[in-house]
Amino acid sequence: MAGESHNWVLMVSAQTPTNIAVIKYWGKSDETLILPVNDSISVTLDPGHLCTTTTVAVSPSFEQDRMWLNGKEISLSGGRYQNCLREIRSRASEIEDKKKGIRITKKDWGKLHLHIASYNNFPTAAGLASSAAGFACLVFALAKLMNVKEDESQLSAIARQGSGSACRSLFGGFVKWIMGKEENGSDSLAVQLADEKHWDDLVIIIAVVSSRQKETSSTSGMRESVDTSLLLQHRAKEVVPKRISQMEEAIKNQDFPSFAQLTCADSNQFHAVCLDTSPPIFYMNDTSHRIISIVEKWNRFEETPQVAYTFDAGPNAVLIARNRKTATLLLQRLLYYFPPNPDTDVDSYIIGDKSILKDAGLEGRTDVEALPPPPEIKGNISSQKYQGDVSYFICTRPGRGPVLLSDESQALLNRETGLPN
Amino acid sequence: MAGESHNWVLMVSAQTPTNIAVIKYWGKSDETLILPVNDSISVTLDPGHLCTTTTVAVSPSFEQDRMWLNGKEISLSGGRYQNCLREIRSRASEIEDKKKGIRITKKDWGKLHLHIASYNNFPTAAGLASSAAGFACLVFALAKLMNVKEDESQLSAIARQGSGSACRSLFGGFVKWIMGKEENGSDSLAVQLADEKHWDDLVIIIAVVSSRQKETSSTSGMRESVDTSLLLQHRAKEVVPKRISQMEEAIKNQDFPSFAQLTCADSNQFHAVCLDTSPPIFYMNDTSHRIISIVEKWNRFEETPQVAYTFDAGPNAVLIARNRKTATLLLQRLLYYFPPNPDTDVDSYIIGDKSILKDAGLEGRTDVEALPPPPEIKGNISSQKYQGDVSYFICTRPGRGPVLLSDESQALLNRETGLPN
Repeated sequence: MAGESHNWVLMVSAQTPTNIAVIKYWGKSDETLILPVNDSISVTLDPGHLCTTTTVAVSPSFEQDRMWLNGKEISLSGGRYQNCLREIRSRASEIEDKKKGIRITKKDWGKLHLHIASYNNFPTAAGLASSAAGFACLVFALAKLMNVKEDESQLSAIARQGSGSACRSLFGGFVKWIMGKEENGSDSLAVQLADEKHWDDLVIIIAVVSSRQKETSSTSGMRESVDTSLLLQHRAKEVVPKRISQMEEAIKNQDFPSFAQLTCADSNQFHAVCLDTSPPIFYMNDTSHRIISIVEKWNRFEETPQVAYTFDAGPNAVLIARNRKTATLLLQRLLYYFPPNPDTDVDSYIIGDKSILKDAGLEGRTDVEALPPPPEIKGNISSQKYQGDVSYFICTRPGRGPVLLSDESQALLNRETGLPN
Repeated sequence: MAGESHNWVLMVSAQTPTNIAVIKYWGKSDETLILPVNDSISVTLDPGHLCTTTTVAVSPSFEQDRMWLNGKEISLSGGRYQNCLREIRSRASEIEDKKKGIRITKKDWGKLHLHIASYNNFPTAAGLASSAAGFACLVFALAKLMNVKEDESQLSAIARQGSGSACRSLFGGFVKWIMGKEENGSDSLAVQLADEKHWDDLVIIIAVVSSRQKETSSTSGMRESVDTSLLLQHRAKEVVPKRISQMEEAIKNQDFPSFAQLTCADSNQFHAVCLDTSPPIFYMNDTSHRIISIVEKWNRFEETPQVAYTFDAGPNAVLIARNRKTATLLLQRLLYYFPPNPDTDVDSYIIGDKSILKDAGLEGRTDVEALPPPPEIKGNISSQKYQGDVSYFICTRPGRGPVLLSDESQALLNRETGLPN
């Protein structure tokens, strides 16, 4: 590599969204390559509310590959990181920055070390698919830094080797992860079904549910399901393929009733497979069940789905409302059943797109306390409230795919030292 | 019919056990005949702790068929009662009681009315399969009264038309309900696999779990599962047949590890199918999940199953311990995690066979409070306790089938009036 000195640091920063599957990925056919037992489809969430920002840097002064996650140094020795780094390095191209007098040849990339800093704008522990956004961002940012010529789908096949669902975070809008047929996994990658503008009515509210239970990691959970569930293969081979084509059709036609029916049924079936695992895996708790009951009751009352629900490997509910008006009515119901604790103010109880709060006429605690029971439970005494069972809500929407951050002030590494800011 | 006057009342009283399925029945292929989509296997529970007592009476003075359940008159107009009464009446034989001067011909039975009084020695609402014991007892008592010549298996096919699982309560010990092949259901009946003495080590502890949720009835729940679950048919056709033969083998050989593995897996799969139903059905709650986790953790720690768990259409856990020693250790664990509320004494918190309480060294509240954490959670901080989450425990064992009660003092109807005592 040619450079005036060893003091230069070359950096790229990127921002990548998280995603929520509406047809679920559960079960690998290859643990190392991370090949799934079925296709899956997801909605990308607005990175304004949930995303990972990653800065990757290269410098001849770096003595080893290092990574910091949310400010804390973590090990890169795991196979998943190593696979992503190896795959990206093997595709690196020559770059030249004449102004800075930097030139890195394809061969140089194999010798240079990297610094990586990554930050989630939401609690990592909240079970909101942080690894999906994280690996997608790592791969995307490294690809830009190293002048990798592959397109997003090809990059998704690399991100997949970090975390399966990460491959779906390489695109905005509606994304399909095709399981592929090749043994080496080269065709197991994500494609965009429609961008985020195609169906921009949808509003997403995430209920972050308080949990006392330690959860099974999705990696070990899906391994145990593959090994022990007698329903998983039937789901993967007989049920999901039909749902995938029905879901593609529903998205294409912005057919909310079909979209909602498929989303809810597939979430429930994924959790059914978890329950059919030995020992059984419970990701949903009583609060998750209550949220489902509230949505199901309302949907039945309206005689057509207003809201779809889906749950990943944890108790949090991801609720997809057909439009903004419905989202307002949903938020009223959620706050009626799950009012904030006395020491929590409404403003910190609902985060993300707070404008929905205003539309719902909920600007303070008194507005929440004044909420009437929803009409679908009229005359029903079971309108019990569950204060404290939800930690907070995030209002968001479908969003765009990864972007480069050109504003250097957003970089997470110091441009002189290559160390975290 | 010949009799001195119209004042005579002829009565029979019987006692019938309840049963708990270890390979589950979930889904009918015929709603009216109550034909199941798969075979099932159950353990009959000791009627000393959980049973139904029924007195049936006939008299020319009765003006209509009437029934009292737990002292309250209920309607007999439902199809299920009508089917059982019609089937039993059509099989009635002539009887003659020369001492009382009573003779009822086969033809008379079609004209005479019946009084029926039934009583459960456990709370009907506790979700402990009261309808199984109830219809079994009704059919058994009527068959005795009417001198029906059919054997228990043939009677089970009648009880089946009252409540599917009732057919399995016609026998003690271990019972299989064969789904049958005939369209008219004549071969859908129960057979005894082994009597209660065959494997008398087993001890059963039932945790009656407090629930705030109204539950879906099993009748409508299984209808919805048949209509909407994409996993139910696969379970019925591909999974259950193998499990039935494995379970028969396990029972024959008193092979507790296999028995436990099959029992737990099949309970979980039944609840998985419920979850795969649209809208999803949740019978287990967080307390049910916790009990499963406690048992699974202990079983893993001991490296061989100590206890099997199974849950019916509700949150109550039925725990089957391999022997009395294990049952003692189980009870210690259950009381460690689920101590009674301050206002509940231990004596009313554990009902049924209280001798296990004594073996476990738990004679009062101070003994419960002094229980150490079980060794399998040593060094684990998550030894949270859940006071109040269990209403009470019932200690019992596998038990005998229906019996006639010859002691007239146990009759629920007055021998003069034929009305409830």
